[in-house]
Amino acid sequence: MNILFASETEKAEFWLPLLQQALPKDKISVSFENPVDVALVATPPAGTLGKLKGVKLIQSLWMGVEKLLADPEYPKGVPLARLIDPGMVAAMSETVLSHVLDWHRHHYRYRAQKAKVEWRRYKQYLAADRTIGILGMGELGSDAARKLLALGFRVAGYSRRPKNLAGVQSFTDLEAMLPLCNALVCLLPLTAGTRGVLNAKTLSLLKPHSCLINVARGGHLVVEDLVRALDSGHLGHAYLDVFDAEPLPTSSPLWKHPGVTITPHSAALTEPRTAIAKVVENVERVRRGETPLHLVDFAAGY
Amino acid sequence: MNILFASETEKAEFWLPLLQQALPKDKISVSFENPVDVALVATPPAGTLGKLKGVKLIQSLWMGVEKLLADPEYPKGVPLARLIDPGMVAAMSETVLSHVLDWHRHHYRYRAQKAKVEWRRYKQYLAADRTIGILGMGELGSDAARKLLALGFRVAGYSRRPKNLAGVQSFTDLEAMLPLCNALVCLLPLTAGTRGVLNAKTLSLLKPHSCLINVARGGHLVVEDLVRALDSGHLGHAYLDVFDAEPLPTSSPLWKHPGVTITPHSAALTEPRTAIAKVVENVERVRRGETPLHLVDFAAGY
Repeated sequence: MNILFASETEKAEFWLPLLQQALPKDKISVSFENPVDVALVATPPAGTLGKLKGVKLIQSLWMGVEKLLADPEYPKGVPLARLIDPGMVAAMSETVLSHVLDWHRHHYRYRAQKAKVEWRRYKQYLAADRTIGILGMGELGSDAARKLLALGFRVAGYSRRPKNLAGVQSFTDLEAMLPLCNALVCLLPLTAGTRGVLNAKTLSLLKPHSCLINVARGGHLVVEDLVRALDSGHLGHAYLDVFDAEPLPTSSPLWKHPGVTITPHSAALTEPRTAIAKVVENVERVRRGETPLHLVDFAAGY
Repeated sequence: MNILFASETEKAEFWLPLLQQALPKDKISVSFENPVDVALVATPPAGTLGKLKGVKLIQSLWMGVEKLLADPEYPKGVPLARLIDPGMVAAMSETVLSHVLDWHRHHYRYRAQKAKVEWRRYKQYLAADRTIGILGMGELGSDAARKLLALGFRVAGYSRRPKNLAGVQSFTDLEAMLPLCNALVCLLPLTAGTRGVLNAKTLSLLKPHSCLINVARGGHLVVEDLVRALDSGHLGHAYLDVFDAEPLPTSSPLWKHPGVTITPHSAALTEPRTAIAKVVENVERVRRGETPLHLVDFAAGY
């Protein structure tokens, strides 16, 4: 089969040798070899999608596919698969745990004290005293939930459809869940229904001194509402990895806000060493005429 | 029995109601009621230890007992028990995980970038790419090791006697272990043999850009050697919770060093809600004439 690798962000020199080794009989290339059977894409060069009519599968190299879905050139009728990369899932849980623990152990406060040469201890809480709310209980949310539970935290999970995960209190009503939460982790896909979900109303429902962790998409957060919730003292700290415009413009007030931790969309990167098996599995499914895994539901938007 | 509660750091108003509820038949007091059967101590007021001759057990309310052992007033022959508090053990693992993940996910670097309004992503490593070395494989070290292993890190453990913990590479030769480590966590008791163990030589053996996490005692670390290892670029970051003098004097160069995170001896506090059962168990053992748990080996110094 002919496999096209089209990405301006993922490095071909990492991916191609691993792909070629795993798929020795296929022709894998960064240029079009007609007919293309499978296209592997992540921020494809302009004009690429328009040339993919008739392709059997477009396999995203990322988990989030909202940009592909929003592209008017997306070839109607071509199935699109998300990449569920175990290395990326593990990386996301590491990031979530890092931020939850930074907040839970008051490390963000102790850093502010260090700048002022101040030695003061805050009250210690047990993990069981804290409820961590997770928005989005798919692969990422479930893995983070399991790891938080293992440390003794209480976990509440919000999703469109009720989920049954041992130890997690499941909600489909967001406003019912938020008042229980000391920390809120956003792992939702960005869709018309989730855009702006982190706003003045939802943030106000969290317990006082909660933290917000947004590792999903910038579009989930209303930045002015967050700044107001931090400045009023209602929220303790915010950990933001994603922004409407990236790199975050130097003019953004978030850079100078002491209540915000900024990471450069680095919460979880696709890891070729672990992702390759998942890409190969879907290529083999196409070859055998089977349904690929993790196909996007175009109506739901993820 | 008469139980004396003697501490200038632990709050009697927290402990006494919980103790009295769990030991309704005993007389628990902050003043001497002769004869004292069991003394519960943590930084006892000056002169207290000298009056405890003939007491059946001195139960520390802390895990570290080096100050009690060094006190010339300690009443010879009176058994001393350390407190192994499950809440405190869990807290220490939270702190260790928080610092390891902060370093592993480059969060300390992203914070420095934020101050410079800089957006740059560092290479992502898998947890399995990193070996975390733990000094001291007792209750604290074993719990931290288990939780690091669950996240996929490699763990190497150093202890005086070889330990057998599934998944952990055990060392009794420190210099053999250090060259494998990307991060080093000190959880040792402070004894004549471990004082100054974190020095120019041992730090130089770690892999480049490693982090050091000292959550044991200030006496384990040679501060000048650490500063030199950070300034040379050999070490990536240091997370210090404990210091020779506490509060850390405002004149310490550590306060202004950008490569050092300082927390106010807050890594793990005794948690009365979980500790009380352990104290009660030892009181009951004394009542029944049995050997208390976690007795200190005066020769080993812990």
